[in-house]
Amino acid sequence: MERGVFISLEGGEGAGKSTQIKALSNYLTDNGIKNIQTREPGGTPGAEKIRDLLVRGDVSLWTPKTEALLMFAARQEHVEKTIKPALATGKWTLCDRFADSSIAYQGIGHGLGMDSIESLHQWVLGDFKPDLTLIFDLPVSLGLQRTQGHAVGENRFESMDVSFHERMRKGFLSIAKSNPDRCIVIDATKSENEVTNDVIKVIMAKYGKMIHGQSC
Amino acid sequence: MERGVFISLEGGEGAGKSTQIKALSNYLTDNGIKNIQTREPGGTPGAEKIRDLLVRGDVSLWTPKTEALLMFAARQEHVEKTIKPALATGKWTLCDRFADSSIAYQGIGHGLGMDSIESLHQWVLGDFKPDLTLIFDLPVSLGLQRTQGHAVGENRFESMDVSFHERMRKGFLSIAKSNPDRCIVIDATKSENEVTNDVIKVIMAKYGKMIHGQSC
Ligand SMILES: Nc1ncnc2c1ncn2[C@@H]1O[C@H](COP(=O)(O)OP(=O)(O)OP(=O)(O)O)[C@@H](O)[C@H]1O
Ligand SMILES: Nc1ncnc2c1ncn2[C@@H]1O[C@H](COP(=O)(O)OP(=O)(O)OP(=O)(O)O)[C@@H](O)[C@H]1O
Ligand SMILES: [Mg+2]
Ligand SMILES: [Mg+2]
Repeated sequence: MERGVFISLEGGEGAGKSTQIKALSNYLTDNGIKNIQTREPGGTPGAEKIRDLLVRGDVSLWTPKTEALLMFAARQEHVEKTIKPALATGKWTLCDRFADSSIAYQGIGHGLGMDSIESLHQWVLGDFKPDLTLIFDLPVSLGLQRTQGHAVGENRFESMDVSFHERMRKGFLSIAKSNPDRCIVIDATKSENEVTNDVIKVIMAKYGKMIHGQSC
Repeated sequence: MERGVFISLEGGEGAGKSTQIKALSNYLTDNGIKNIQTREPGGTPGAEKIRDLLVRGDVSLWTPKTEALLMFAARQEHVEKTIKPALATGKWTLCDRFADSSIAYQGIGHGLGMDSIESLHQWVLGDFKPDLTLIFDLPVSLGLQRTQGHAVGENRFESMDVSFHERMRKGFLSIAKSNPDRCIVIDATKSENEVTNDVIKVIMAKYGKMIHGQSC
Protein backbone atom coordinates (compact mmCIF):
# COMPACT_ATOMS: atom_id res chain seq x y z
CA MET A 1 0.00 0.00 0.00
CA GLU A 2 1.21 3.49 -0.81
CA ARG A 3 2.12 5.60 2.21
CA GLY A 4 -0.25 8.52 2.84
CA VAL A 5 0.83 12.15 2.41
CA PHE A 6 1.55 14.19 5.55
CA ILE A 7 0.43 17.83 5.28
CA SER A 8 0.75 20.39 8.09
CA LEU A 9 -1.12 23.70 8.27
CA GLU A 10 0.78 26.47 10.03
CA GLY A 11 0.47 30.17 10.81
CA GLY A 12 -0.41 32.58 13.60
CA GLU A 13 -3.61 32.80 15.64
CA GLY A 14 -6.76 33.21 13.54
CA ALA A 15 -4.98 32.60 10.23
CA GLY A 16 -7.66 30.09 9.21
CA LYS A 17 -5.86 26.77 9.80
CA SER A 18 -8.81 25.07 11.50
CA THR A 19 -11.18 26.40 8.82
CA GLN A 20 -9.03 25.27 5.90
CA ILE A 21 -8.16 21.84 7.29
CA LYS A 22 -11.87 20.94 7.10
CA ALA A 23 -12.20 22.30 3.56
CA LEU A 24 -9.13 20.39 2.43
CA SER A 25 -10.32 17.19 4.09
CA ASN A 26 -13.70 17.48 2.35
CA TYR A 27 -12.02 18.08 -0.98
CA LEU A 28 -9.80 15.00 -0.57
CA THR A 29 -12.71 12.83 0.57
CA ASP A 30 -14.78 13.99 -2.42
CA ASN A 31 -11.89 12.88 -4.61
CA GLY A 32 -11.65 9.43 -3.06
CA ILE A 33 -8.61 10.09 -0.86
CA LYS A 34 -8.87 8.61 2.65
CA ASN A 35 -7.64 11.14 5.17
CA ILE A 36 -7.62 12.08 8.85
CA GLN A 37 -7.62 15.50 10.51
CA THR A 38 -5.58 15.97 13.63
CA ARG A 39 -4.06 18.85 15.60
CA GLU A 40 -1.22 19.91 17.84
CA PRO A 41 -0.60 20.06 20.64
CA GLY A 42 -2.80 16.98 21.00
CA GLY A 43 -3.96 14.21 18.71
CA THR A 44 -3.76 11.29 21.17
CA PRO A 45 -5.40 10.95 24.60
CA GLY A 46 -2.02 11.43 26.33
CA ALA A 47 -1.01 14.34 24.14
CA GLU A 48 -4.35 16.06 24.78
CA LYS A 49 -3.55 15.93 28.52
CA ILE A 50 -0.23 17.63 27.79
CA ARG A 51 -2.13 20.16 25.63
CA ASP A 52 -4.21 21.09 28.67
CA LEU A 53 -1.02 22.00 30.54
CA LEU A 54 0.13 24.17 27.64
CA VAL A 55 -2.88 26.13 26.44
CA ARG A 56 -4.44 27.12 29.76
CA GLY A 57 -3.24 29.23 32.63
CA ASP A 58 -0.90 32.13 33.01
CA VAL A 59 1.22 33.41 30.11
CA SER A 60 4.38 32.90 32.16
CA LEU A 61 3.33 29.53 33.62
CA TRP A 62 6.26 27.65 32.04
CA THR A 63 9.80 28.62 31.14
CA PRO A 64 10.31 28.71 27.33
CA LYS A 65 12.39 25.51 27.48
CA THR A 66 9.72 23.68 29.48
CA GLU A 67 7.15 24.82 26.94
CA ALA A 68 9.29 23.42 24.10
CA LEU A 69 9.81 20.12 25.95
CA LEU A 70 6.09 19.72 26.62
CA MET A 71 5.30 20.49 22.97
CA PHE A 72 7.74 17.85 21.78
CA ALA A 73 6.53 15.36 24.41
CA ALA A 74 3.01 15.73 22.99
CA ARG A 75 4.41 15.57 19.43
CA GLN A 76 6.33 12.36 20.10
CA GLU A 77 3.11 10.63 21.25
CA HIS A 78 1.17 12.07 18.33
CA VAL A 79 3.71 11.01 15.70
CA GLU A 80 4.20 7.48 17.02
CA LYS A 81 0.60 6.69 17.93
CA THR A 82 -1.50 8.63 15.40
CA ILE A 83 0.43 10.07 12.45
CA LYS A 84 2.82 7.25 11.50
CA PRO A 85 0.14 4.54 11.83
CA ALA A 86 -2.29 6.58 9.67
CA LEU A 87 0.35 7.21 6.99
CA ALA A 88 1.33 3.54 7.02
CA THR A 89 -2.24 2.52 6.16
CA GLY A 90 -2.24 4.95 3.25
CA LYS A 91 -4.32 7.68 4.91
CA TRP A 92 -3.40 11.27 4.15
CA THR A 93 -2.81 13.04 7.44
CA LEU A 94 -3.77 16.70 7.78
CA CYS A 95 -2.32 18.30 10.87
CA ASP A 96 -3.40 21.65 12.34
CA ARG A 97 0.04 22.93 13.48
CA PHE A 98 3.17 20.79 13.74
CA ALA A 99 6.89 21.26 14.44
CA ASP A 100 7.17 24.61 12.64
CA SER A 101 4.94 26.07 15.35
CA SER A 102 7.62 25.14 17.89
CA ILE A 103 10.22 26.94 15.82
CA ALA A 104 8.00 30.00 15.49
CA TYR A 105 6.66 30.11 19.06
CA GLN A 106 9.42 28.76 21.29
CA GLY A 107 12.34 29.26 18.91
CA ILE A 108 11.59 32.75 17.62
CA GLY A 109 8.71 34.13 19.75
CA HIS A 110 10.40 33.17 23.04
CA GLY A 111 13.93 33.54 21.65
CA LEU A 112 15.33 30.02 22.19
CA GLY A 113 16.58 30.11 18.59
CA MET A 114 15.68 28.13 15.46
CA ASP A 115 18.79 25.93 15.73
CA SER A 116 18.01 25.01 19.29
CA ILE A 117 14.50 23.82 18.37
CA GLU A 118 15.87 22.00 15.32
CA SER A 119 18.26 20.09 17.54
CA LEU A 120 15.45 19.14 19.95
CA HIS A 121 13.40 18.05 16.91
CA GLN A 122 16.31 15.87 15.82
CA TRP A 123 16.53 14.25 19.27
CA VAL A 124 12.79 13.52 19.33
CA LEU A 125 11.84 12.77 15.73
CA GLY A 126 15.03 12.53 13.69
CA ASP A 127 14.32 13.62 10.11
CA PHE A 128 10.57 13.04 10.30
CA LYS A 129 8.89 16.10 8.70
CA PRO A 130 5.66 16.83 6.80
CA ASP A 131 5.70 16.24 3.04
CA LEU A 132 4.03 19.62 2.55
CA THR A 133 3.49 22.57 4.89
CA LEU A 134 0.94 25.29 4.14
CA ILE A 135 1.83 28.51 5.94
CA PHE A 136 -1.18 30.81 6.30
CA ASP A 137 0.11 34.36 6.48
CA LEU A 138 -1.76 37.47 7.59
CA PRO A 139 -1.16 40.61 9.68
CA VAL A 140 -1.14 39.83 13.40
CA SER A 141 -3.89 42.33 14.19
CA LEU A 142 -6.27 40.73 11.68
CA GLY A 143 -5.65 37.26 13.07
CA LEU A 144 -6.17 38.32 16.68
CA GLN A 145 -9.33 40.20 15.64
CA ARG A 146 -10.71 37.03 14.06
CA THR A 147 -10.15 34.90 17.18
CA GLN A 148 -11.56 37.44 19.63
CA GLY A 149 -13.74 35.59 22.13
CA HIS A 150 -12.97 32.09 20.80
CA ALA A 151 -11.74 29.02 22.67
CA VAL A 152 -12.58 30.18 26.17
CA GLY A 153 -9.87 29.07 28.62
CA GLU A 154 -7.52 27.89 25.88
CA ASN A 155 -5.98 31.31 25.43
CA ARG A 156 -2.52 31.15 26.98
CA PHE A 157 -0.77 31.80 23.66
CA GLU A 158 -3.29 34.33 22.37
CA SER A 159 -2.61 36.36 25.51
CA MET A 160 1.05 36.84 24.67
CA ASP A 161 1.88 40.38 23.62
CA VAL A 162 1.68 41.69 20.06
CA SER A 163 5.46 41.85 19.59
CA PHE A 164 5.56 38.10 20.38
CA HIS A 165 3.06 37.46 17.58
CA GLU A 166 4.96 39.76 15.20
CA ARG A 167 8.20 37.83 15.80
CA MET A 168 6.30 34.61 15.19
CA ARG A 169 4.88 35.80 11.87
CA LYS A 170 8.37 36.68 10.66
CA GLY A 171 9.48 33.32 11.98
CA PHE A 172 6.99 31.42 9.83
CA LEU A 173 8.05 33.41 6.76
CA SER A 174 11.69 32.67 7.40
CA ILE A 175 10.92 28.94 7.85
CA ALA A 176 9.20 29.06 4.44
CA LYS A 177 12.25 30.71 2.91
CA SER A 178 14.65 28.11 4.37
CA ASN A 179 12.45 25.16 3.30
CA PRO A 180 11.21 26.05 -0.19
CA ASP A 181 10.68 22.40 -1.21
CA ARG A 182 8.37 21.71 1.72
CA CYS A 183 6.65 25.02 2.53
CA ILE A 184 4.15 27.14 0.59
CA VAL A 185 2.97 30.51 1.91
CA ILE A 186 -0.75 31.15 1.45
CA ASP A 187 -2.22 34.67 1.57
CA ALA A 188 -4.70 34.28 4.44
CA THR A 189 -6.21 37.76 4.19
CA LYS A 190 -8.50 36.66 1.35
CA SER A 191 -12.03 35.30 1.90
CA GLU A 192 -12.48 31.74 3.14
CA ASN A 193 -13.48 30.46 -0.31
CA GLU A 194 -10.60 32.20 -2.06
CA VAL A 195 -8.14 30.73 0.44
CA THR A 196 -9.64 27.25 -0.04
CA ASN A 197 -9.22 27.61 -3.81
CA ASP A 198 -5.59 28.62 -3.35
CA VAL A 199 -5.00 25.60 -1.09
CA ILE A 200 -6.55 23.23 -3.61
CA LYS A 201 -4.42 24.72 -6.41
CA VAL A 202 -1.28 23.98 -4.37
CA ILE A 203 -2.44 20.43 -3.63
CA MET A 204 -3.34 19.74 -7.26
CA ALA A 205 -0.05 21.14 -8.54
CA LYS A 206 1.89 18.83 -6.23
CA TYR A 207 -0.34 15.75 -5.93
CA GLY A 208 -2.78 16.01 -8.84
CA LYS A 209 -1.62 12.74 -10.39
CA MET A 210 -2.02 10.79 -7.14
CA ILE A 211 -5.46 12.29 -6.59
CA HIS A 212 -6.76 11.62 -10.07
CA GLY A 213 -5.31 8.11 -9.95
CA GLN A 214 -7.44 7.43 -6.84
CA SER A 215 -10.72 9.05 -7.75
CA CYS A 216 -13.36 6.75 -9.17
CA MET B 1 26.71 34.86 50.33
CA GLU B 2 28.12 31.41 49.69
CA ARG B 3 26.14 29.28 47.25
CA GLY B 4 24.36 26.30 48.84
CA VAL B 5 25.38 22.71 48.15
CA PHE B 6 23.21 20.65 45.81
CA ILE B 7 22.88 16.99 46.85
CA SER B 8 20.79 14.39 45.03
CA LEU B 9 19.67 11.04 46.46
CA GLU B 10 19.30 8.29 43.88
CA GLY B 11 18.56 4.58 43.66
CA GLY B 12 15.80 2.12 42.86
CA GLU B 13 12.35 1.81 44.42
CA GLY B 14 12.39 1.33 48.20
CA ALA B 15 16.12 2.04 48.54
CA GLY B 16 15.47 4.50 51.36
CA LYS B 17 15.88 7.86 49.57
CA SER B 18 12.80 9.46 51.12
CA THR B 19 13.76 8.11 54.56
CA GLN B 20 17.36 9.33 54.37
CA ILE B 21 16.59 12.76 52.92
CA LYS B 22 14.72 13.58 56.13
CA ALA B 23 17.51 12.26 58.32
CA LEU B 24 20.12 14.26 56.39
CA SER B 25 18.01 17.41 56.52
CA ASN B 26 17.63 17.07 60.28
CA TYR B 27 21.36 16.57 60.69
CA LEU B 28 22.15 19.67 58.64
CA THR B 29 19.55 21.78 60.48
CA ASP B 30 20.96 20.61 63.83
CA ASN B 31 24.35 21.81 62.62
CA GLY B 32 23.10 25.24 61.61
CA ILE B 33 22.93 24.60 57.85
CA LYS B 34 19.83 26.03 56.16
CA ASN B 35 18.42 23.51 53.74
CA ILE B 36 15.40 22.51 51.71
CA GLN B 37 14.07 19.08 50.76
CA THR B 38 12.58 18.61 47.33
CA ARG B 39 11.83 15.75 44.94
CA GLU B 40 11.55 14.73 41.32
CA PRO B 41 9.53 14.56 39.26
CA GLY B 42 7.96 17.59 40.96
CA GLY B 43 9.20 20.36 43.20
CA THR B 44 7.18 23.25 41.72
CA PRO B 45 3.40 23.51 41.21
CA GLY B 46 3.81 23.09 37.43
CA ALA B 47 6.26 20.22 37.76
CA GLU B 48 3.93 18.42 40.18
CA LYS B 49 1.25 18.53 37.45
CA ILE B 50 3.72 16.91 35.06
CA ARG B 51 4.52 14.37 37.81
CA ASP B 52 0.87 13.35 37.87
CA LEU B 53 1.06 12.50 34.17
CA LEU B 54 4.17 10.39 34.79
CA VAL B 55 3.58 8.37 37.93
CA ARG B 56 -0.04 7.33 37.42
CA GLY B 57 -1.75 5.19 34.83
CA ASP B 58 -0.71 2.34 32.62
CA VAL B 59 2.90 1.16 32.42
CA SER B 60 2.90 1.69 28.66
CA LEU B 61 1.05 5.03 28.77
CA TRP B 62 3.92 6.98 27.20
CA THR B 63 6.65 6.10 24.73
CA PRO B 64 10.10 6.06 26.39
CA LYS B 65 11.04 9.30 24.60
CA THR B 66 7.86 11.04 25.75
CA GLU B 67 8.61 9.89 29.28
CA ALA B 68 12.12 11.36 29.06
CA LEU B 69 10.80 14.66 27.65
CA LEU B 70 8.18 14.97 30.40
CA MET B 71 10.83 14.22 33.05
CA PHE B 72 13.10 16.93 31.69
CA ALA B 73 10.19 19.37 31.29
CA ALA B 74 9.46 18.94 35.01
CA ARG B 75 13.19 19.15 35.79
CA GLN B 76 13.63 22.41 33.85
CA GLU B 77 10.86 24.05 35.93
CA HIS B 78 12.27 22.60 39.14
CA VAL B 79 15.83 23.74 38.48
CA GLU B 80 14.91 27.28 37.37
CA LYS B 81 12.17 27.99 39.91
CA THR B 82 13.18 26.02 43.02
CA ILE B 83 16.72 24.65 43.00
CA LYS B 84 18.78 27.54 41.56
CA PRO B 85 16.97 30.19 43.65
CA ALA B 86 17.50 28.14 46.84
CA LEU B 87 21.20 27.57 46.10
CA ALA B 88 21.63 31.27 45.30
CA THR B 89 20.38 32.23 48.77
CA GLY B 90 22.86 29.83 50.35
CA LYS B 91 20.41 27.03 51.14
CA TRP B 92 21.59 23.48 50.74
CA THR B 93 19.21 21.68 48.43
CA LEU B 94 18.49 17.99 49.00
CA CYS B 95 16.73 16.38 46.08
CA ASP B 96 14.97 13.00 46.16
CA ARG B 97 15.93 11.78 42.64
CA PHE B 98 17.39 13.99 39.90
CA ALA B 99 18.84 13.58 36.40
CA ASP B 100 20.58 10.25 37.12
CA SER B 101 17.12 8.71 37.49
CA SER B 102 16.44 9.67 33.86
CA ILE B 103 19.64 7.95 32.80
CA ALA B 104 18.77 4.85 34.82
CA TYR B 105 15.05 4.67 33.98
CA GLN B 106 14.67 6.05 30.45
CA GLY B 107 18.27 5.64 29.31
CA ILE B 108 19.02 2.16 30.61
CA GLY B 109 15.69 0.69 31.82
CA HIS B 110 13.84 1.65 28.62
CA GLY B 111 16.95 1.36 26.44
CA LEU B 112 17.18 4.90 25.02
CA GLY B 113 20.88 4.89 25.93
CA MET B 114 22.96 6.88 28.42
CA ASP B 115 24.39 9.13 25.70
CA SER B 116 20.97 10.01 24.40
CA ILE B 117 19.79 11.13 27.86
CA GLU B 118 23.06 13.00 28.40
CA SER B 119 22.46 14.97 25.20
CA LEU B 120 18.90 15.82 26.25
CA HIS B 121 20.30 16.90 29.64
CA GLN B 122 22.76 19.14 27.83
CA TRP B 123 19.94 20.73 25.77
CA VAL B 124 17.83 21.39 28.86
CA LEU B 125 20.31 22.16 31.64
CA GLY B 126 23.76 22.49 30.09
CA ASP B 127 26.38 21.43 32.64
CA PHE B 128 24.16 21.93 35.68
CA LYS B 129 24.64 18.86 37.93
CA PRO B 130 24.48 18.07 41.66
CA ASP B 131 27.62 18.70 43.70
CA LEU B 132 27.18 15.30 45.33
CA THR B 133 25.00 12.31 44.46
CA LEU B 134 24.30 9.55 46.97
CA ILE B 135 23.34 6.32 45.22
CA PHE B 136 21.46 3.95 47.52
CA ASP B 137 22.07 0.43 46.31
CA LEU B 138 20.20 -2.74 47.24
CA PRO B 139 18.85 -5.89 45.56
CA VAL B 140 15.74 -5.16 43.51
CA SER B 141 13.62 -7.74 45.35
CA LEU B 142 14.40 -6.15 48.74
CA GLY B 143 13.48 -2.66 47.48
CA LEU B 144 10.19 -3.78 45.93
CA GLN B 145 9.38 -5.72 49.12
CA ARG B 146 9.91 -2.56 51.18
CA THR B 147 7.54 -0.45 49.03
CA GLN B 148 4.79 -3.08 48.85
CA GLY B 149 1.46 -1.31 49.33
CA HIS B 150 2.94 2.20 49.44
CA ALA B 151 2.03 5.27 47.35
CA VAL B 152 -1.37 4.11 46.15
CA GLY B 153 -1.99 5.24 42.57
CA GLU B 154 1.57 6.51 42.11
CA ASN B 155 2.85 3.13 41.02
CA ARG B 156 3.45 3.33 37.28
CA PHE B 157 7.19 2.78 37.64
CA GLU B 158 6.96 0.22 40.44
CA SER B 159 4.74 -1.84 38.13
CA MET B 160 7.46 -2.24 35.53
CA ASP B 161 8.87 -5.76 35.38
CA VAL B 162 11.76 -7.02 37.49
CA SER B 163 14.22 -7.09 34.57
CA PHE B 164 13.54 -3.35 34.10
CA HIS B 165 14.50 -2.73 37.73
CA GLU B 166 17.57 -4.98 37.42
CA ARG B 167 18.80 -2.99 34.41
CA MET B 168 18.20 0.20 36.36
CA ARG B 169 20.20 -0.98 39.36
CA LYS B 170 23.15 -1.78 37.08
CA GLY B 171 22.59 1.60 35.45
CA PHE B 172 22.99 3.48 38.74
CA LEU B 173 26.17 1.54 39.53
CA SER B 174 27.60 2.35 36.13
CA ILE B 175 26.73 6.06 36.56
CA ALA B 176 28.65 5.95 39.87
CA LYS B 177 31.63 4.38 38.14
CA SER B 178 31.66 7.01 35.37
CA ASN B 179 31.30 9.93 37.82
CA PRO B 180 33.57 9.06 40.75
CA ASP B 181 34.04 12.70 41.81
CA ARG B 182 30.32 13.31 42.14
CA CYS B 183 28.78 9.95 43.10
CA ILE B 184 29.05 7.80 46.21
CA VAL B 185 27.39 4.39 46.45
CA ILE B 186 25.76 3.67 49.81
CA ASP B 187 24.93 0.12 50.94
CA ALA B 188 21.17 0.43 51.44
CA THR B 189 20.63 -3.08 52.81
CA LYS B 190 21.73 -1.99 56.29
CA SER B 191 19.31 -0.72 58.97
CA GLU B 192 17.94 2.83 58.71
CA ASN B 193 20.26 4.12 61.44
CA GLU B 194 23.33 2.47 59.97
CA VAL B 195 22.54 3.97 56.56
CA THR B 196 22.05 7.41 58.12
CA ASN B 197 25.44 7.11 59.81
CA ASP B 198 27.07 6.18 56.51
CA VAL B 199 25.42 9.18 54.81
CA ILE B 200 26.64 11.54 57.50
CA LYS B 201 30.17 10.14 57.24
CA VAL B 202 30.18 10.92 53.51
CA ILE B 203 28.85 14.42 54.10
CA MET B 204 31.38 15.16 56.84
CA ALA B 205 34.28 13.84 54.76
CA LYS B 206 33.35 16.17 51.90
CA TYR B 207 31.82 19.21 53.65
CA GLY B 208 32.93 18.92 57.30
CA LYS B 209 34.81 22.22 57.18
CA MET B 210 31.82 24.13 55.78
CA ILE B 211 29.51 22.56 58.34
CA HIS B 212 31.72 23.24 61.33
CA GLY B 213 32.33 26.77 60.10
CA GLN B 214 28.55 27.36 60.20
CA SER B 215 27.54 25.68 63.42
CA CYS B 216 27.30 27.88 66.46
N1 LIG C 1 -10.43 33.85 5.19
C1 LIG C 1 -11.15 34.25 6.26
N2 LIG C 1 -11.72 35.46 6.29
C2 LIG C 1 -12.41 35.86 7.36
N3 LIG C 1 -12.59 35.13 8.48
C3 LIG C 1 -12.02 33.92 8.51
C4 LIG C 1 -11.27 33.41 7.41
N4 LIG C 1 -10.84 32.18 7.72
C5 LIG C 1 -11.29 31.91 8.96
N5 LIG C 1 -12.02 32.97 9.43
C6 LIG C 1 -12.66 33.08 10.73
O1 LIG C 1 -11.62 33.51 11.63
C7 LIG C 1 -11.69 32.81 12.84
C8 LIG C 1 -10.38 32.05 13.05
O2 LIG C 1 -10.29 31.04 12.03
P1 LIG C 1 -9.65 29.64 12.40
O3 LIG C 1 -10.19 29.15 13.69
O4 LIG C 1 -9.79 28.77 11.20
O5 LIG C 1 -8.14 30.10 12.57
P2 LIG C 1 -6.94 29.30 13.20
O6 LIG C 1 -5.77 29.59 12.34
O7 LIG C 1 -7.31 27.87 13.38
O8 LIG C 1 -6.80 30.01 14.59
P3 LIG C 1 -6.10 29.46 15.95
O9 LIG C 1 -4.63 29.65 15.77
O10 LIG C 1 -6.66 30.34 17.01
O11 LIG C 1 -6.50 28.03 16.10
C9 LIG C 1 -12.93 31.92 12.75
O12 LIG C 1 -13.99 32.58 13.36
C10 LIG C 1 -13.16 31.75 11.27
O13 LIG C 1 -14.51 31.54 10.96
N1 LIG D 1 17.38 0.77 55.84
C1 LIG D 1 16.11 0.34 55.84
N2 LIG D 1 15.79 -0.88 56.29
C2 LIG D 1 14.52 -1.33 56.26
N3 LIG D 1 13.48 -0.62 55.82
C3 LIG D 1 13.75 0.62 55.35
C4 LIG D 1 15.05 1.16 55.34
N4 LIG D 1 15.01 2.41 54.80
C5 LIG D 1 13.71 2.64 54.49
N5 LIG D 1 12.95 1.57 54.84
C6 LIG D 1 11.51 1.41 54.65
O1 LIG D 1 11.33 1.00 53.30
C7 LIG D 1 10.25 1.68 52.69
C8 LIG D 1 10.79 2.47 51.51
O2 LIG D 1 11.65 3.49 51.98
P1 LIG D 1 11.68 4.91 51.25
O3 LIG D 1 10.30 5.38 50.99
O4 LIG D 1 12.59 5.78 52.02
O5 LIG D 1 12.37 4.46 49.90
P2 LIG D 1 12.50 5.29 48.55
O6 LIG D 1 13.86 5.01 48.05
O7 LIG D 1 12.11 6.70 48.79
O8 LIG D 1 11.41 4.55 47.64
P3 LIG D 1 10.65 5.11 46.32
O9 LIG D 1 11.61 4.94 45.21
O10 LIG D 1 9.47 4.19 46.21
O11 LIG D 1 10.28 6.54 46.59
C9 LIG D 1 9.64 2.55 53.77
O12 LIG D 1 8.57 1.82 54.34
C10 LIG D 1 10.77 2.71 54.78
O13 LIG D 1 10.28 2.89 56.09
MG1 LIG E 1 -7.36 26.64 15.07
MG1 LIG F 1 10.64 7.91 47.90
